[in-house]
Amino acid sequence: MREMTKKFLEDAFAGESMAHMKYLIFADEAEKKGLKKLANAFRAIAYAEFVHARNHFRALKKLGDTPDNIKSCIAGETFEIEEMYPVYKETAKLQEEKEAQISTHYALEAEKIHAEMYKKALNLVNEGQDYDAEKIYICPVCGYTAEDVAPEKCPVCGAPKSAFVEF
Amino acid sequence: MREMTKKFLEDAFAGESMAHMKYLIFADEAEKKGLKKLANAFRAIAYAEFVHARNHFRALKKLGDTPDNIKSCIAGETFEIEEMYPVYKETAKLQEEKEAQISTHYALEAEKIHAEMYKKALNLVNEGQDYDAEKIYICPVCGYTAEDVAPEKCPVCGAPKSAFVEF
Ligand SMILES: [Fe+2]
Ligand SMILES: [Fe+2]
Ligand SMILES: [Fe+2]
Ligand SMILES: [Fe+2]
Ligand SMILES: [Fe+2]
Ligand SMILES: [Fe+2]
Repeated sequence: MREMTKKFLEDAFAGESMAHMKYLIFADEAEKKGLKKLANAFRAIAYAEFVHARNHFRALKKLGDTPDNIKSCIAGETFEIEEMYPVYKETAKLQEEKEAQISTHYALEAEKIHAEMYKKALNLVNEGQDYDAEKIYICPVCGYTAEDVAPEKCPVCGAPKSAFVEF
Repeated sequence: MREMTKKFLEDAFAGESMAHMKYLIFADEAEKKGLKKLANAFRAIAYAEFVHARNHFRALKKLGDTPDNIKSCIAGETFEIEEMYPVYKETAKLQEEKEAQISTHYALEAEKIHAEMYKKALNLVNEGQDYDAEKIYICPVCGYTAEDVAPEKCPVCGAPKSAFVEF
């Protein structure tokens, strides 16, 4: 693929992903205000942006077979753990930005778990097996990720077991 | 907020949004291969990245009240319609990149509708009302967006009515 087209598709994938995310965040906010149909519109349009992002992703030939997809996840999580979040968290500390210190700390802790999960997934898939967790529980405050059973209290942010979202 | 912390949080929001999107795309692919538990793990971890993105977004003070949120959507869609996608689409044509021509054309057409929907939403919310569409239908091929009833055939990509996703 030509360089400029590739660059633009990558930027378009980033833009669509951020629009999708923003609309999901705004949907929850509208829902809280009792604006149910507005929340539904935000979620519907967020799905349209998902379709656009997926089209750009496919055009970029980034959708591979399952082991390659998992490897790309391991690479992304590892970059965040080893490079990105330690730098962002240290910068927030240096600049005394409290909220940014918390949001980068929360992310860093969860990414460590995600990297291990994806490594396990790659081993299982390479052996011809599906993933092995029946249920996965996510902390809605910090993103802490647990398999099979939610903790009594989130070890990262202290949120109660009842708040965890089950998948 | 200090400049470098702000820059890093913006980059982290982009990174989390793209990770979220990638995991949703991989979840569908795993599901198609019959790997149900792997698909579930991708979706659970995608939700954790949503939590991270939302934390960064809040720390950046980008979550406003409902009219401000809608204005930010109008601005984003308008930029895509007037600046981003016309340039990307023209570049794909110039460079004879067929798939990129299609994926940027599909996005451009849908964003025009989204901008109008958000303008209508802003007027309604300013009058103290909720959005006025009971149902919204999205084309899963191109993201074409219709209110109240799905078209017999997608006017942008030709997908049949039965393929539309209802919200
Ligand atoms: Fe889009
Ligand atoms: Fe992660
Ligand atoms: Fe937590
Ligand atoms: Fe994350
Ligand atoms: Fe849009
Ligand atoms: Fe379509």
